[in-house]
Amino acid sequence: MRKVCVVITARPSYARIRTALEAIRAHPDLELQLVVAASALLERYGKADEVIETEGFDIRRKVYMVVEGENLVTSAKSTGFGLAELATVFDGLEPDMVISVADRYETMATAVAAAYMNIPLVHVQGGEVTGSIDEKVRHAVTKLADIHLVSSAPAAERVIRMGENPHAVHVTGCPSIDLARVAAEAEPRAPDEVLKDYGGVGADFDLDNGYVVVLQHPVTTHFEEAGDHIRETLRAVDGSGLPTLWFWPNVDAGSDATSKGIRIYREQYDPQNIRFYRNLRPLDFLSILINSDCIIGNSSVAIRECAYLGVPAVNIGDRQSGRDRGANVMDVPHERAAIADAITAQVKRGNCGSDELYGNGDAGTRIADVVARAPLTIEKRLTY
Amino acid sequence: MRKVCVVITARPSYARIRTALEAIRAHPDLELQLVVAASALLERYGKADEVIETEGFDIRRKVYMVVEGENLVTSAKSTGFGLAELATVFDGLEPDMVISVADRYETMATAVAAAYMNIPLVHVQGGEVTGSIDEKVRHAVTKLADIHLVSSAPAAERVIRMGENPHAVHVTGCPSIDLARVAAEAEPRAPDEVLKDYGGVGADFDLDNGYVVVLQHPVTTHFEEAGDHIRETLRAVDGSGLPTLWFWPNVDAGSDATSKGIRIYREQYDPQNIRFYRNLRPLDFLSILINSDCIIGNSSVAIRECAYLGVPAVNIGDRQSGRDRGANVMDVPHERAAIADAITAQVKRGNCGSDELYGNGDAGTRIADVVARAPLTIEKRLTY
Amino acid sequence: MRKVCVVITARPSYARIRTALEAIRAHPDLELQLVVAASALLERYGKADEVIETEGFDIRRKVYMVVEGENLVTSAKSTGFGLAELATVFDGLEPDMVISVADRYETMATAVAAAYMNIPLVHVQGGEVTGSIDEKVRHAVTKLADIHLVSSAPAAERVIRMGENPHAVHVTGCPSIDLARVAAEAEPRAPDEVLKDYGGVGADFDLDNGYVVVLQHPVTTHFEEAGDHIRETLRAVDGSGLPTLWFWPNVDAGSDATSKGIRIYREQYDPQNIRFYRNLRPLDFLSILINSDCIIGNSSVAIRECAYLGVPAVNIGDRQSGRDRGANVMDVPHERAAIADAITAQVKRGNCGSDELYGNGDAGTRIADVVARAPLTIEKRLTY
Amino acid sequence: MRKVCVVITARPSYARIRTALEAIRAHPDLELQLVVAASALLERYGKADEVIETEGFDIRRKVYMVVEGENLVTSAKSTGFGLAELATVFDGLEPDMVISVADRYETMATAVAAAYMNIPLVHVQGGEVTGSIDEKVRHAVTKLADIHLVSSAPAAERVIRMGENPHAVHVTGCPSIDLARVAAEAEPRAPDEVLKDYGGVGADFDLDNGYVVVLQHPVTTHFEEAGDHIRETLRAVDGSGLPTLWFWPNVDAGSDATSKGIRIYREQYDPQNIRFYRNLRPLDFLSILINSDCIIGNSSVAIRECAYLGVPAVNIGDRQSGRDRGANVMDVPHERAAIADAITAQVKRGNCGSDELYGNGDAGTRIADVVARAPLTIEKRLTY
Repeated sequence: MRKVCVVITARPSYARIRTALEAIRAHPDLELQLVVAASALLERYGKADEVIETEGFDIRRKVYMVVEGENLVTSAKSTGFGLAELATVFDGLEPDMVISVADRYETMATAVAAAYMNIPLVHVQGGEVTGSIDEKVRHAVTKLADIHLVSSAPAAERVIRMGENPHAVHVTGCPSIDLARVAAEAEPRAPDEVLKDYGGVGADFDLDNGYVVVLQHPVTTHFEEAGDHIRETLRAVDGSGLPTLWFWPNVDAGSDATSKGIRIYREQYDPQNIRFYRNLRPLDFLSILINSDCIIGNSSVAIRECAYLGVPAVNIGDRQSGRDRGANVMDVPHERAAIADAITAQVKRGNCGSDELYGNGDAGTRIADVVARAPLTIEKRLTY
Repeated sequence: MRKVCVVITARPSYARIRTALEAIRAHPDLELQLVVAASALLERYGKADEVIETEGFDIRRKVYMVVEGENLVTSAKSTGFGLAELATVFDGLEPDMVISVADRYETMATAVAAAYMNIPLVHVQGGEVTGSIDEKVRHAVTKLADIHLVSSAPAAERVIRMGENPHAVHVTGCPSIDLARVAAEAEPRAPDEVLKDYGGVGADFDLDNGYVVVLQHPVTTHFEEAGDHIRETLRAVDGSGLPTLWFWPNVDAGSDATSKGIRIYREQYDPQNIRFYRNLRPLDFLSILINSDCIIGNSSVAIRECAYLGVPAVNIGDRQSGRDRGANVMDVPHERAAIADAITAQVKRGNCGSDELYGNGDAGTRIADVVARAPLTIEKRLTY
Repeated sequence: MRKVCVVITARPSYARIRTALEAIRAHPDLELQLVVAASALLERYGKADEVIETEGFDIRRKVYMVVEGENLVTSAKSTGFGLAELATVFDGLEPDMVISVADRYETMATAVAAAYMNIPLVHVQGGEVTGSIDEKVRHAVTKLADIHLVSSAPAAERVIRMGENPHAVHVTGCPSIDLARVAAEAEPRAPDEVLKDYGGVGADFDLDNGYVVVLQHPVTTHFEEAGDHIRETLRAVDGSGLPTLWFWPNVDAGSDATSKGIRIYREQYDPQNIRFYRNLRPLDFLSILINSDCIIGNSSVAIRECAYLGVPAVNIGDRQSGRDRGANVMDVPHERAAIADAITAQVKRGNCGSDELYGNGDAGTRIADVVARAPLTIEKRLTY
Repeated sequence: MRKVCVVITARPSYARIRTALEAIRAHPDLELQLVVAASALLERYGKADEVIETEGFDIRRKVYMVVEGENLVTSAKSTGFGLAELATVFDGLEPDMVISVADRYETMATAVAAAYMNIPLVHVQGGEVTGSIDEKVRHAVTKLADIHLVSSAPAAERVIRMGENPHAVHVTGCPSIDLARVAAEAEPRAPDEVLKDYGGVGADFDLDNGYVVVLQHPVTTHFEEAGDHIRETLRAVDGSGLPTLWFWPNVDAGSDATSKGIRIYREQYDPQNIRFYRNLRPLDFLSILINSDCIIGNSSVAIRECAYLGVPAVNIGDRQSGRDRGANVMDVPHERAAIADAITAQVKRGNCGSDELYGNGDAGTRIADVVARAPLTIEKRLTY
């Protein structure tokens, strides 16, 4: 019985990995040890811990570790304090392996703690290319990890080229596609129905004639420009007049500036076609996406889930640059006019058809499978 | 005037990088900000901070960060607390770049803090191959770093193959060779003269007819076996009857077991040909090496400085495995007989001649030069 | 030249101690070392660091230490991480004494760090009685402190009864009264004029015919009830129909619930006589108070500054219970009707005349004076 | 079923509180949650965690928290990191009350974490008087604690005078006396028999004609003088020629200097009447004490257990000054001659008879009893 410790540090990470958690929990040879930490415990990021417990998972440890400030100093400090505490957590839980998901800054705490404690580290979603601090985090975690569960064939190739042992690299697809598939195969639901419990703020309008979705996160290496960047998007979207559902960014250095930019714009211009929402439950969010005409911003959802779902995407700036993408994506810089033109083009285009670049919806099961049978080793070295 | 922050976390790292520190301090376009942390502040590792100040460097901040326990949990915790504090340090000092040296576990604290705070990170001595946790740390730091100052051409090639931009990779040689060159070119000194102030413990014997040097560190991934490993070496060296100068290991998870193994052996067998020493000043240690017949153990000094100096080396176990080596090195497993045979062979062999694999003694100047003129950027991505 | 380190952890603490900071900075025998930490660095608490620098103080170190969560766990964690970092700060600054202000939870970090490092600790505002966690913090800091600068004669008596050396106890008055005196003696300003830059949210109304001020903080030992408590006050104030300026609470475990309670009430009832503000500059806030008909809530301002200013106060609940008070205060429980009745009575009453219970406006100078000449000792013991 | 969390941070604290732990574990209404932290986990302080587990206790959490350096900075940092982690521990264990023992510096971490998290805090051994940092810690913990379990009537009186509610103060006696009573009532054992497994270092001599015991800790407020102080004692004891069993000090800022002083003296003078030991099991140590002619140093054992046992004590310096003492104690300054004279006088004197000042041996049961029935409250305020 392998004890598999998964550290969830943010609500989106939970959403992304959930089908893998279910598969691990259900696997006869695996014991799931769930640790919830960082923004996943915080009210203003939707208290993922409560969601997780509601959805029937047992949380073994909770670690508050986000140092307030939302700047670059506190990103580093949060990671440090988290690393120190996760060491105690792993010492207590004695897992046979630790799973770290993707590339958020605080995942480095999980990765370093596991690596330093000689616990085999499984990294989910390595090998992708994006730029920004995520890029550094992702590849650094790859170099700390013993087993690599990647989302796509090109990602696998890159992990191997970085000097990792090919036998330790497994293409499982991205578990976020599992949920996208569930959402796509579910009974269709009217957007108003989906949203009615969430109490967004802003304009009120009819969703029946189509709408677009916006999700734009701050980019840590453009910390100073976050305010300007969000303003360009706000102007383009406001100017389009299209009914818009806008979702708040998650926690990162700079989210203050992004959130502030949104607040200032709202107070100044009170855009009549935008309604703002905080965290939706993942299936609800996917359902909203499936029904949308276009997704705008810099979220990986546009690249990943929307490839599978065929939803046209306007991807702004360089946060996703380098990431493998399907035909649904149109890239634009942080310029009002370019954003506006792309929105028009993409909305006109309609659904692009499914692309299985990031998997076909069985990643959770595949992950549990590898986790249950992969050799547990902590010794590795560059293959060249 | 670029502000260059160098974080020294251990006495050996200081010794290794010292000529670069001098060159940076002397450079008209650079301001050196020296931070001393971790075991470099501790009495039982020779209080490098006092050495550093004695040698005329100004220490800008001191950060106690080693959590006591010398096990894997505390390695992780120390790194975490160090990371959190170094963030505050960098926030206060506002360096234009941060230099992190080599691959000790706690260097990850420096690397993550700098990377997360968008401060260009310079990594000295990336691209080498060794196995053990150092391997993971080293390559993870490479993926966090923006500028790579490597010791050898093969190391440069590996860093580039890992996906780093070739323009950011500079072969400077290893600054430890600078000191080795100074030692080699200095007036010869009798070993007794060099050692007379250090007060080692153990047997007393004549050094005039030759002697060997032992330096064996614990290996974190063989934590449990550290006691057995050191015992094999002790037996082989004891059995050889050769006059032996044995140096205590530095701080690492497991050093307790190594140190304990030494203590137990001494109490049981009281070997009459071994004398034990703690930290020597670097030039004194090099002088001792130059005069020795052979170095035994698993220290990188045997691979690096001794290549340049031509001192024969018996390298035990896998701590240095994978590292590029010159003709002076003979590799053996942790087995008494193999170690003993290799000692006999190497002592007989005599000096092997200088090999410039790790540089020719001007690494410090080269490093300062790159640091002064390299473009400062924090944006990077995989080259493939 | 005594180096005097003052640690400011919150905007209200800065406001309270500011005249002492000025007097210390101006004193020929003292060097002020200002450290800004915790919520004093955070945007949502008004970034006191920027205010402090704007007002001409030099900040020697900044320490982010608030762990996000605003619950009891994070109060403890923030204090712990702050303590660890302040130790490094004191080690670097080498102050001759450290000043800790009042009784906020995070002041324990300052007090413990100084006491453990054998740095004489000066506690400002000990000896008061309030209940709640502040009570425990305040008296615990008294037992760690070497010099006590208290606000009133009864406070001095209590500190001495707790076993402190009478020679180490000095009645200086509360420095917050210094500002109150400045405000009282300043040219009168119309409230609209004072508020015009602050951009509060909520109802718009005329302030010329009088208004009341509300400031109600969560109480950590009634964490669960914070929502109910704020609602009673909201109802009473809403029901009174009086023009009301309401100020948001500061950071504490529970402030989430209080702030949330306010937000929910606003959304449900949209009270037409209440306008909400965040941090005002201290003199602006005092000017608003001087012109108000009554202060409502549980802030110490009502007890302290308003005693000196003669502003009638409705003090709700037990946060201030036990604190010495002047004739201006009327105490009520967390009950809508009692609060409403007290508001009516106090508004009718008008200004109560100045009471110098907490000093007469020269506390800053007195504090600097004691700090400059008090014997520096760290040895003490119970006097009985 | 009350969940009672006890945090053990050092081997001597465990020894002192053990009978209370047993009584709590055996009590039908109590669940013991044992947390082991700080030096209690460290090899060089005798790994109390292993002792604790060997003795049948279940350890719920282990927290490494000692920052290496053994100076005042690291005392503060250790406490800070410990506080931060204990908050997580209490959040996970959800105890109904927390017990903190005595006055070591790191107990402040336990006390602050419990107080800030609104968990009723029980303080064992408050109200005593000693001077040095322990004095500040002890009374600060008293001001944070809700229930006081004191060792003696004078201690109870002092806690009450400090403003604590008399109903919350219980005289239980000191649980260390429970063990002393067990030892006193046990079958007598020859000292050689007791010591034979411990392997001390130093001189070898006969214990049959009597011997003395030395136990001297560094004093944090005389950090600089620790070396001088220990040397005076070493000289006096060496000069006495009496067979001497000397026990190493525990961890504290300064222990380096004390330990170093001992090591230097040994190397210089090689005293022929002194044998050095590390941690003995408590009953073994008590047995050694019972048979000794005198205890020398500054340990509380001389004041406390030896009062009950009637063993004459030479108490050196001010570490125990202020502490209530029986007739067995003779106080001397850190002066060789005074120490030597006192040793002679006390050895001549013989056993002084039992004094129940610190209890009569049922403290463990009494503590469990109070813990099981005391009202659980976290609200308190000064009684004056």
